[in-house]
Amino acid sequence: MSNRYKVATIGLGSMGFGIASSLLRADLDVYGYDISEQQAEKFRQEGGLSGSLPEVAPQLDAVVVVVLNAAQAESVLFGETGVVVQLQKGAVVISCATVTPEFAAQMADRCEALGVLYVDAPISGGSIKAANGQLSVMASGSAEAFRAAKPALDAMAENVFEMGASAGAGSAMKAVNQLLAGVHIASMAEALAFGMKQGIDADKIFNVIKQSAGNSWMFENRAPHIVAGDYTAHSAVDIWLKDLGIVLDISKQEKFSAPLTAAALQQFIAASGSGYGAEDDAAVIKVYANNSNLTLPGEK
Amino acid sequence: MSNRYKVATIGLGSMGFGIASSLLRADLDVYGYDISEQQAEKFRQEGGLSGSLPEVAPQLDAVVVVVLNAAQAESVLFGETGVVVQLQKGAVVISCATVTPEFAAQMADRCEALGVLYVDAPISGGSIKAANGQLSVMASGSAEAFRAAKPALDAMAENVFEMGASAGAGSAMKAVNQLLAGVHIASMAEALAFGMKQGIDADKIFNVIKQSAGNSWMFENRAPHIVAGDYTAHSAVDIWLKDLGIVLDISKQEKFSAPLTAAALQQFIAASGSGYGAEDDAAVIKVYANNSNLTLPGEK
Repeated sequence: MSNRYKVATIGLGSMGFGIASSLLRADLDVYGYDISEQQAEKFRQEGGLSGSLPEVAPQLDAVVVVVLNAAQAESVLFGETGVVVQLQKGAVVISCATVTPEFAAQMADRCEALGVLYVDAPISGGSIKAANGQLSVMASGSAEAFRAAKPALDAMAENVFEMGASAGAGSAMKAVNQLLAGVHIASMAEALAFGMKQGIDADKIFNVIKQSAGNSWMFENRAPHIVAGDYTAHSAVDIWLKDLGIVLDISKQEKFSAPLTAAALQQFIAASGSGYGAEDDAAVIKVYANNSNLTLPGEK
Repeated sequence: MSNRYKVATIGLGSMGFGIASSLLRADLDVYGYDISEQQAEKFRQEGGLSGSLPEVAPQLDAVVVVVLNAAQAESVLFGETGVVVQLQKGAVVISCATVTPEFAAQMADRCEALGVLYVDAPISGGSIKAANGQLSVMASGSAEAFRAAKPALDAMAENVFEMGASAGAGSAMKAVNQLLAGVHIASMAEALAFGMKQGIDADKIFNVIKQSAGNSWMFENRAPHIVAGDYTAHSAVDIWLKDLGIVLDISKQEKFSAPLTAAALQQFIAASGSGYGAEDDAAVIKVYANNSNLTLPGEK
């Protein structure tokens, strides 16, 4: 075995595959695992190393977990074939799923009980930035955990925002970002449909708003999908049922009233209930269109 | 009398004074009027010309109306001492207040019946851009009206978005912008308070979000007021009761459901009802803080 930094990525979806590829480009020893053997094979063809997880785990320096939600993260870490018990002491788990701060703190405690370090490391930026190693990571954990994770974090991220020494702080910051991002996508849809209903062309609205005080990162990123009538999922409607759900779970726990988040979540639920759950999240505008007899660009 | 372009600005508040000053810098003949004689005198000291409105009106090429709302605009244009009836044929009214498209269309019709041109010209950008002649104007009107207004529009605006030939289209576009701007201010407050409630410092949230997908023009502009604990009014809470009220008036008229706008308006109403109506609109965060026992920066 070489003395090179060894890292496994578990979860090779649109974000995980990009992260694993960025780790490869940084000249680390990278293993990739996915519930789909086809995805895992695809990653080996890109340069991923071969070896079953039970075989490889005891030699790893780091495991980057890029799964969809808390249940999947818990299963990967501590399920029947969970990886943490197989890791050497001092190895680090870098957990990227969007979860509640409470869940992140629990996972960290269970890792630490086994001598394994933990970085609460939710990510932001989308699949293109993942593939280019340009993600933002809202990270928290001990100084020792950050040190152990550094080669992997440096390879996958353009910005690592260090939010504190306790697992949970990273997830809290991610929830703040998701609150804003989700509300801004829904408000983008509300405003575009409102303008179109008054007879203004969608592309004209886009051009004015991107130069005005009503602009947002999400407006500029998602409104073009509506102008083009293209709802190919980059980030799906159903992700917001989960992420804004997490925001409201925290809110209830903290007794914090969040009425805009609640209103935005209802629009995403209505979009999912109308059959658009797997479409791009910009498809939340179809709820507004259906409720106001509005024809969207690209529709007959 | 010279053959120079003659323009009067009616309303010399924070926006109107800046616009009138920009007209002066463009070397036009500029008259300024305000309900406060003190403001009018201040403008004359800056280089504004002297003369009562009844005296000056018949010689004007353009009148820029920069008042707070539809009632004031109607009074200035068609009230007892209204200016339109005193204007020469072919003069143009440039109306900057945020009003409903329906109201703008009515004003245009009444002007045209008297041979006076009308540009529906709501403005965006704030008092600093007004003073620098860098406003955005969401404008609509006939080609003839735009031609007559050109020297004034060029002097006051960096961007003139031409929204169409009918008065009302400019106001419709402004309403789209205000929907987004108002929702984004309220979501900025909701997100900052939500993060602080979880123990993250306000300035840390600001620094992460401005580099993340949750960013908006309003977040970047207003969050620093909260970080600094400074609620000196640049744009007051009560403006949003009016502007989001206009959005919802249009929405009801068009049978368009706008739940995020409705939720945001309720937060601004609560802020005004709590006594913060004249403070900076970032003070909407005080509603969130009061409702969750949160201490804001600058409070004891």
